[in-house]
Amino acid sequence: MHNEVWNDHLNPVAFLERSSFVYPDKPAVVYGSLTYTYAQLHERVNRLAGALRNAGVVKGDRVAFIVPNIPAMLEGHFGPMAIGAVLVAVNTRLATREVEHIINHSGAKIIVFDSEYASTIRDLKDKLPNVTLLVQVVDTSPHADDIPGPDYETFLASAPEGQHREQLDSELDTIAINYTSGTTGLPKGVQYHARGAYLAAMGEIIESGLNWRSKYLWTLPMFHCNGWCFTWAVTGIGGTHICLRRVDPIDILSLITEQGVTHMCGAPTVLISMYSSPAAEGQDLRGLTIVTAGAPPAPVVLRAMESMGATVLHAYGLTETYGPHTMCEPQLEWDSYSPTEMALAKSRQGVPYIQAHTGMRVVDERMQDVPLDGQTLGEVAMRGNNVMSGYYNDIENTNKSFAGGWFHSGDLAVWHSNGYIELKDRAKDIIISGGENISSQEVEKTIMEHPGVLEVSVIGVPDDKWGEVPKAFVVSRDGASITADEIISFCQDRIARFKAPKHVTFGNLPKTATGKVQKYILRNQEWGNQQTRIQGPGAK
Amino acid sequence: MHNEVWNDHLNPVAFLERSSFVYPDKPAVVYGSLTYTYAQLHERVNRLAGALRNAGVVKGDRVAFIVPNIPAMLEGHFGPMAIGAVLVAVNTRLATREVEHIINHSGAKIIVFDSEYASTIRDLKDKLPNVTLLVQVVDTSPHADDIPGPDYETFLASAPEGQHREQLDSELDTIAINYTSGTTGLPKGVQYHARGAYLAAMGEIIESGLNWRSKYLWTLPMFHCNGWCFTWAVTGIGGTHICLRRVDPIDILSLITEQGVTHMCGAPTVLISMYSSPAAEGQDLRGLTIVTAGAPPAPVVLRAMESMGATVLHAYGLTETYGPHTMCEPQLEWDSYSPTEMALAKSRQGVPYIQAHTGMRVVDERMQDVPLDGQTLGEVAMRGNNVMSGYYNDIENTNKSFAGGWFHSGDLAVWHSNGYIELKDRAKDIIISGGENISSQEVEKTIMEHPGVLEVSVIGVPDDKWGEVPKAFVVSRDGASITADEIISFCQDRIARFKAPKHVTFGNLPKTATGKVQKYILRNQEWGNQQTRIQGPGAK
Repeated sequence: MHNEVWNDHLNPVAFLERSSFVYPDKPAVVYGSLTYTYAQLHERVNRLAGALRNAGVVKGDRVAFIVPNIPAMLEGHFGPMAIGAVLVAVNTRLATREVEHIINHSGAKIIVFDSEYASTIRDLKDKLPNVTLLVQVVDTSPHADDIPGPDYETFLASAPEGQHREQLDSELDTIAINYTSGTTGLPKGVQYHARGAYLAAMGEIIESGLNWRSKYLWTLPMFHCNGWCFTWAVTGIGGTHICLRRVDPIDILSLITEQGVTHMCGAPTVLISMYSSPAAEGQDLRGLTIVTAGAPPAPVVLRAMESMGATVLHAYGLTETYGPHTMCEPQLEWDSYSPTEMALAKSRQGVPYIQAHTGMRVVDERMQDVPLDGQTLGEVAMRGNNVMSGYYNDIENTNKSFAGGWFHSGDLAVWHSNGYIELKDRAKDIIISGGENISSQEVEKTIMEHPGVLEVSVIGVPDDKWGEVPKAFVVSRDGASITADEIISFCQDRIARFKAPKHVTFGNLPKTATGKVQKYILRNQEWGNQQTRIQGPGAK
Repeated sequence: MHNEVWNDHLNPVAFLERSSFVYPDKPAVVYGSLTYTYAQLHERVNRLAGALRNAGVVKGDRVAFIVPNIPAMLEGHFGPMAIGAVLVAVNTRLATREVEHIINHSGAKIIVFDSEYASTIRDLKDKLPNVTLLVQVVDTSPHADDIPGPDYETFLASAPEGQHREQLDSELDTIAINYTSGTTGLPKGVQYHARGAYLAAMGEIIESGLNWRSKYLWTLPMFHCNGWCFTWAVTGIGGTHICLRRVDPIDILSLITEQGVTHMCGAPTVLISMYSSPAAEGQDLRGLTIVTAGAPPAPVVLRAMESMGATVLHAYGLTETYGPHTMCEPQLEWDSYSPTEMALAKSRQGVPYIQAHTGMRVVDERMQDVPLDGQTLGEVAMRGNNVMSGYYNDIENTNKSFAGGWFHSGDLAVWHSNGYIELKDRAKDIIISGGENISSQEVEKTIMEHPGVLEVSVIGVPDDKWGEVPKAFVVSRDGASITADEIISFCQDRIARFKAPKHVTFGNLPKTATGKVQKYILRNQEWGNQQTRIQGPGAK
């Protein structure tokens, strides 16, 4: 009875196709003095798709991008999936060993990398058995001549003529894998399907109020949950992407003025850097909407940004929920709130995004809803179109994370009587430092490899600049004499620098009767009464 | 590999569930002095669902509503589908015979009707073999005591306690059937699936710029394509529905002011009635967005509404495309257009809505795209999520309308070089005079420029020499005295002489509920039995 023509997949690629048809001559992406119109972006994406196919990439193959927020990274959000392949956008701050794990675990066939990261590729290139081609994007760093493979522009030029689009078999096919540290040491590959990505982008358009005149500034890395799906949302609405290679408050503020930026995203630390900058003096940010996440915006942050005219929206989610899952939706009665009441209201993580429907609960250990009393602590659980299909090649963790049919965020929250959640704590072994997730277990495992270490426990401790930083409590082996500096540089050689502990102390560890380290005792020592930290979308 | 939790149907019912969770105390619907909050609306819908189930309605059953734009009609857009049943919203202006056909063809089990239409029900009630229950909504007309069955409020009260929601088997299940006259005599039942309705609503939110503060005035009948899916869109965004039993320009203008209406829809004739009303004097319509369709808004209509401050968006579609399928999207370069250039640009039907992707073409008889030259006439064809699944119990017409895999609109258009379509006529509204094609719309646009003309409709009438010639039916402005000769020479000065009407009469125009001119009535007067029509979204 149903006509077959309904079969029009929800796929972000359709957004680019429509916008290149409706807005062919409109700027799609601006990067310094470079502008591509939607027709040009579409053509470049088509060439990328064709070049990938020509290089042997077929439906379902993984293509890794190690590229900052420049146009090539945006193109990477359409080219692979246009032929049914899968984007693996790699965090550019990771250490070589982590990149190696991600490339090999994902089985990526091709790596597109920016010359800035040539040294990582140089170190790795003989340890990547599945990789058949390295493509080098030359932008601000010189071409690394010793690394074989075409540069990106030559690669695009190699595409055969014609259109290279292929339909997915199902809109639940994976189009992106985003690696996240999660609670275990090794990054897990969070799979996004086309349907979820499409709907999350529709949700961002609606919740952040994007329209065809919008100009979106790329302060949030595209490798974080595909830029909270704004890569697809801004393209869908026919807005303009303003690329930004490196986050710098002076650049941000001048681009906002020069380009007429209407939207941007970032953790509160990005906002702090903006209003603390001397360039903030006299800035008029009316017409700018900022979606912030990663931590609740403190009253002083809200006041500072809003006194400059900006609108701040507070969202929350995880890599497993395509970035944002909840929005702290404003209410009519808030219009009469005092600044203090408003700051309190806005500090909560809120309610599900429109496309997330009612797919969020706060539950106890038996998966029963906790009372909506603003008091009882429970775990935030999600399900629906806005939740990943599972971890790539990791049935065990997938099943574990979906116990009881809901995704377990590991974040602890109370549920207020108005249905808004407020995060109180989270999986205790995750440290958020400057917006990046650090698994304390991963740091612990690394330190344990040091021959002089008997035992170790790592927690996050307060830090004025980064919010929190890792601190290691080390029990030395008998007779070993190790220094703090030694532990720190040992880590810096093995994992991303930002994951290395900033502080190290030596001594015994507090333990339970069964021998489990009592991290909360260490935490209480370090934090005292200070608020503990919470988690936001895409924090790695 | 995919986790099962993805399985979250796209279903408009999810919109109400989320809004009642996020905005429980916010006004969902206002009707005169009556207001229901979202929590109340959800509870009433739940009771409607429970009462229907209690009355024997099961998944897939049809439930007919013959109710004007009052809260019960809005509730009808959620209650049946909450238990997987199908809404048949019947045009309240139809003749008894047509209602009989719709009820019996759809096999509706239950009819919910407003007492105003008691006489129709009285005439019909013994000719409806499938109907097991009549439910009477008592509002402005007295209760018809001779018609058996509970009144609507008693019916709601009969619902068993508890939640009555049932999941669909598939999001492609039909949730609404909208009967449309089409080109044949008997109305055909256009089937909407949950997925299409959900996505069309998302599209309306985005394209018309709805947000949580929006207040939508119900000038467009909800029985037309389910109110172009604004029934679901406004609910989804958590806006407020302002109900309006009868379209009257004075009521419209006063509600806009009193309620702070931000959005409404209507054919250009509704706009004409607004600015021609004495109540329009001094009206400030800034902040009001109007989506108009059914005919291109004439320059004078745009000028009049925009001089009052309103923003007019021009959309186009059919019942078969959930209402709007294209939007005349504004472009950056239009910012520098003169009023004349702007009126020309805005008179085109435009490009597909965001959720319609690129599912529209203008094709010749062999299903090849016509050139994008703004000259070559072709038929508008659509496909995708925004197109019906088929006509209910009518394989033959379904197959015919989807010949070649695309839905055939029957509308003739040219395709401009920028991808915008411009409707020239219905196939049957083209006047062929002495072998030359004349677009009746072009003649109408010309006549509308005459300062003494309020409204006009042009059709072809029999002529011995030319086969047919254009005839104009003119509604003069109050106080204007114009002659037929004056209209004819006005046209001869502006368009090809053969396109100028040969005959002009003055008087009122027959119209549909949305205010669209019923050309077939004029045509029947002139030609006898030949039945044709012009079509826009929701034309019945």
